[in-house]
Amino acid sequence: GGSVFKNGVYTTVTQSLKENGIKFHLVSGVRANPEFGKVCQAITEAKEHGCNGVLAVGGGSVLDSCKAVAAGMCLDKAEDVWQCYEFKHIVTEALPLFCVLTISATGSEVNGGTVLQRDDLRKKFSFKSPHLYPVCSCLDPEVQAGLPWYQTTNGLVDAITHTMEFLMTCSDPKEYEAGVNMGVGIIRTVLTCGDTLQRDEKDYAARANFMWAASCALSGIAAIRTGGLGDWAVHSLEHTLSAVHPTVSHGAGLGVLMPSYIQHHAQKGDRTALWERLAKDLFGGETWQDLVAGLKDMLKRWGHPTTLSALLDREIVEADIAQLTETFMMRPFSGYREDKVLPKDEAEAIYRLCCKE
Amino acid sequence: GGSVFKNGVYTTVTQSLKENGIKFHLVSGVRANPEFGKVCQAITEAKEHGCNGVLAVGGGSVLDSCKAVAAGMCLDKAEDVWQCYEFKHIVTEALPLFCVLTISATGSEVNGGTVLQRDDLRKKFSFKSPHLYPVCSCLDPEVQAGLPWYQTTNGLVDAITHTMEFLMTCSDPKEYEAGVNMGVGIIRTVLTCGDTLQRDEKDYAARANFMWAASCALSGIAAIRTGGLGDWAVHSLEHTLSAVHPTVSHGAGLGVLMPSYIQHHAQKGDRTALWERLAKDLFGGETWQDLVAGLKDMLKRWGHPTTLSALLDREIVEADIAQLTETFMMRPFSGYREDKVLPKDEAEAIYRLCCKE
Repeated sequence: GGSVFKNGVYTTVTQSLKENGIKFHLVSGVRANPEFGKVCQAITEAKEHGCNGVLAVGGGSVLDSCKAVAAGMCLDKAEDVWQCYEFKHIVTEALPLFCVLTISATGSEVNGGTVLQRDDLRKKFSFKSPHLYPVCSCLDPEVQAGLPWYQTTNGLVDAITHTMEFLMTCSDPKEYEAGVNMGVGIIRTVLTCGDTLQRDEKDYAARANFMWAASCALSGIAAIRTGGLGDWAVHSLEHTLSAVHPTVSHGAGLGVLMPSYIQHHAQKGDRTALWERLAKDLFGGETWQDLVAGLKDMLKRWGHPTTLSALLDREIVEADIAQLTETFMMRPFSGYREDKVLPKDEAEAIYRLCCKE
Repeated sequence: GGSVFKNGVYTTVTQSLKENGIKFHLVSGVRANPEFGKVCQAITEAKEHGCNGVLAVGGGSVLDSCKAVAAGMCLDKAEDVWQCYEFKHIVTEALPLFCVLTISATGSEVNGGTVLQRDDLRKKFSFKSPHLYPVCSCLDPEVQAGLPWYQTTNGLVDAITHTMEFLMTCSDPKEYEAGVNMGVGIIRTVLTCGDTLQRDEKDYAARANFMWAASCALSGIAAIRTGGLGDWAVHSLEHTLSAVHPTVSHGAGLGVLMPSYIQHHAQKGDRTALWERLAKDLFGGETWQDLVAGLKDMLKRWGHPTTLSALLDREIVEADIAQLTETFMMRPFSGYREDKVLPKDEAEAIYRLCCKE
């Protein structure tokens, strides 16, 4: 948090607003895994100031929060916006949303999705609305050159996982040739640019290409054949993880969960052709084991945790697995795939796999 | 031409129009390399009938013609629409355009580009306008299952060339990682689906994936880093070829020209890194020769001509090369790349290379 004050973006944006005679009221201090309380505060203050638009300046958490504010401004009470995340209220209007992106990861700058957390309920839920697409998003790769490496890797892993979530809806890659090839193109871009940025964080081309790949990853371009539907089970498992442990960043949680998710299903013979195709196209391998090994190699190379224990920096005990599994089952849904809602024993097995190297 | 009457599409479309109380006036008989005269006839008839929209039912030539009609309906005289193709008039309004696509190739269903031919002037010129985007395009892969194989290959080669035109603006693929990877994904899709369709023209998944890849090929998705600009020199050379020889189909001409275009520049050391990257990613090769050989293998495998002589079914003499080169020089531009307009001697050299196996 607070990076926009250090990297000059805040000054650039506010000067531009002033020069154009646009009044604004600042709300700052959005944390990773953005919290409901901050959103309620922002809605209340925005109503007091009679705001008629929302400008998000930051990364995924800021955008997620601003989408909640844009929707919440059209509701009677600030707290009512949580009903959208519980799927008990459908957004029919929102204030116009504008975006200046400072970290590439969530792809929230090119879609109408938002995630919000309630620490008090241990819930991290999401929803999408066509009313929450940014009117305009400004992306400047140079702004991201000063990001700490762990934040860059979180973004890299998030973009790869978004692309994988769309690909994972498909068991036969031949049915889905265009989507698989474009998805592979996006992931390859992230892998190449990630390795370049690890060597030189200021490489403009790598920042710019990763920035665009991260937007594409969640724009749905690789998901046309599925009508835009993704699997989202890895995201659901991660949102639970962050809900229980709010200090776990989204990208770090995804990195630990994705290889385990693949391993769990591959061992049952589920989507074998897809794992083999991705092993070949991404890592020059042949088997699902090559895909899992390729992803874990990537995480280790980038200094990312590969186990729950490394993620939480302590031993994981049975009670941790039980708590995660039970919290996961509190979700109103565990993915968007109509044909496959992850059952309790599978969620438990996947969390358990995350304990192993 | 006339396929919409055989494959049932005409009946389906006209029944739908009648059921919804939409009056229509039919203009049929659009040929490949669509001619200006037919467009003038259509505009005149559409004005007589007071048409307020244009419905294109067919492939690229029909769409190109219908875009000309949509623009021409807002001009005083039907013939004035040619001024747009000479870059002497800029379109500021057009009738709304709707599309039912019956062959995937030109990508005209997802952009505002149009090409038109004047046999009398030996000119085949194109222009783009945001006013000429279809309001809505309907694509059904099953309609294409009955296409003659040579028409399918024309479409395959056109889609590959469109993607290549965007990639060919770039000399250093590292500057352009996301675009190259997504472009490669599109071309790989076309290669795989083409081989499948050669074995089984009714393979639904291959038709559907090729259909979507062909739309993506000219949607600009792989050209974001170039601001949507492409090279378009291969297209310019082909439009000249079709202008001089109106029986040459666009896709067949592109197939002959593209390998020669690459060879001409590669021999001079122009864009070496790009050719080597594409040789590796598309055909598992290493050198520009591998890229050219891979493309020619593809053409031979699909039964496509690889020389001007095979294309025109006669010996090519010096007078042919001279005529093509001179006609090429009559173009108002020979590509959209501001930094590189193909000079006369280069055009001549490329046409000459097209004579060799």
